[in-house]
Amino acid sequence: MKQGVKQGMKIVVAKRAGFCFGVKRAIDIAFDVAKKSHGGVYTLGPIIHNPQVVEKLMAEGVTPVNDIKELKNKNVKAVIIRTHGVPIQVMKKLTEAGYKTIDATCPFVKKAQHYAKLLREEGYKVVILGDRDHPEVKGLMSYAGRRVVVVRSGKDFPTLKGKVGIVVQTTQQIETLKELLAVAVERTKELKVYNTICNSTALRLKETEEMAKTADVMVIVGGRNSANTTQLANLCSSLSVPTYHIETASELKEEWFSKAKKVGITAGASTPDWIIKDVKRKIEGYRRKAG
Amino acid sequence: MKQGVKQGMKIVVAKRAGFCFGVKRAIDIAFDVAKKSHGGVYTLGPIIHNPQVVEKLMAEGVTPVNDIKELKNKNVKAVIIRTHGVPIQVMKKLTEAGYKTIDATCPFVKKAQHYAKLLREEGYKVVILGDRDHPEVKGLMSYAGRRVVVVRSGKDFPTLKGKVGIVVQTTQQIETLKELLAVAVERTKELKVYNTICNSTALRLKETEEMAKTADVMVIVGGRNSANTTQLANLCSSLSVPTYHIETASELKEEWFSKAKKVGITAGASTPDWIIKDVKRKIEGYRRKAG
Repeated sequence: MKQGVKQGMKIVVAKRAGFCFGVKRAIDIAFDVAKKSHGGVYTLGPIIHNPQVVEKLMAEGVTPVNDIKELKNKNVKAVIIRTHGVPIQVMKKLTEAGYKTIDATCPFVKKAQHYAKLLREEGYKVVILGDRDHPEVKGLMSYAGRRVVVVRSGKDFPTLKGKVGIVVQTTQQIETLKELLAVAVERTKELKVYNTICNSTALRLKETEEMAKTADVMVIVGGRNSANTTQLANLCSSLSVPTYHIETASELKEEWFSKAKKVGITAGASTPDWIIKDVKRKIEGYRRKAG
Repeated sequence: MKQGVKQGMKIVVAKRAGFCFGVKRAIDIAFDVAKKSHGGVYTLGPIIHNPQVVEKLMAEGVTPVNDIKELKNKNVKAVIIRTHGVPIQVMKKLTEAGYKTIDATCPFVKKAQHYAKLLREEGYKVVILGDRDHPEVKGLMSYAGRRVVVVRSGKDFPTLKGKVGIVVQTTQQIETLKELLAVAVERTKELKVYNTICNSTALRLKETEEMAKTADVMVIVGGRNSANTTQLANLCSSLSVPTYHIETASELKEEWFSKAKKVGITAGASTPDWIIKDVKRKIEGYRRKAG
């Protein structure tokens, strides 16, 4: 019996794979600025969590730096604020140093920042549901004020006196928020919740889940530093379907698809279309070989 | 083998059985007014959902009426507002008719009314978790404004545009609220929740649940028209322990306790102590007979 890739293997790409609204907007802004500036454009941290896109932008003269200090003694024409946003303090430092800033923060992240600020101003103790090491959350924290608490789940929910306000990292899962609320409402008399989970994230997760239920192999395409891509991979793994998280087609291995009847491909919000197409094309190649 | 009540049968009364703070306060007010007025005192509806207490008060000259109209042509010295509160419109009618009102609304219900009003004023669409036929909820609805929606569970949660505010009938179960929030947060971008569930209700339910887990028979004492007493009985039944909801000791039947090793007794917030003691005494009597 042949163990290789089946000729009839189905390959399905998720409709919602790849760039979300906020990422597309930021990339467009970056290429636009690059075109006008002819070099001297910087981003604080990678503009999105996708190394291949960052490389392409570098070729156009948009360079990521990790810290404002690195900008010293450079001919800086503009500093682009990336999709995840930055803490207020960083924005202030950039302005004080006289740099021209271009804000490519995702509008949904901006909304979450606004709500964090609003809650603080209204006297709420702010709880952020998210990953405190993620740049988006670092930004949110600065808006929520000094007494902010970041939690990863209901288990971490602290005992707080007075009224509590919740904002959510835009790429969190709704189930995690529900779990958090179940704990929070029992311990809090007044609770205000801004469900700032981005619809695109929610729908992509849902579609991926549906796909993983019927696929024999799932291929998740996107930066290994992309939280939302990793989340897709974790979701599929949790459903016990063989799952491979890759950044580019070059990482694919033919043996993954031996005996698979259906392959599902999806990608994080920061994965460009051309990488997804590359991946699909290469898997189609395995199938042709089998023919 | 003897089938009757066991001599060693344990009888345990829940620590939190009977009058809660709000009910005790209202009864004290009513007896106090009765003493000073020598008749001519009325309550709109029974002051609490316990027929035996209502009877005792009637003997002191405090009479329940179902409608303001019934007060016409009577020598009304005072109208007591009962624990559950009344709709704003009713309060207005009483004042306009020139009646002296004495407010015995439970302070926790008053708080819920205040929050319902606040939410309406702040532009929230108000959702009340509770039973729309219960007098407390009827009162709350009047504070929440015309666009209020009353739901019994998450299943009833409507599709609403804009921000949603939730208040809860004080005697609801926290699990029902959690369920509601799980639905609400997925459909609402801005959600404000006042957890107005009364602690006393929550703790009584918890204690009853613990008791029902180890008892062979549960006796729930309280008005058949008392929502929170009925809730205790439903909780015990759902745990598959034989459960009897009675109003007074006269309803007890010895055969319920044949072979029981442990009997649990609890009572709703509107059940007076003397009725609970009566019940305990009568069950103790069965045990003595067995000796």
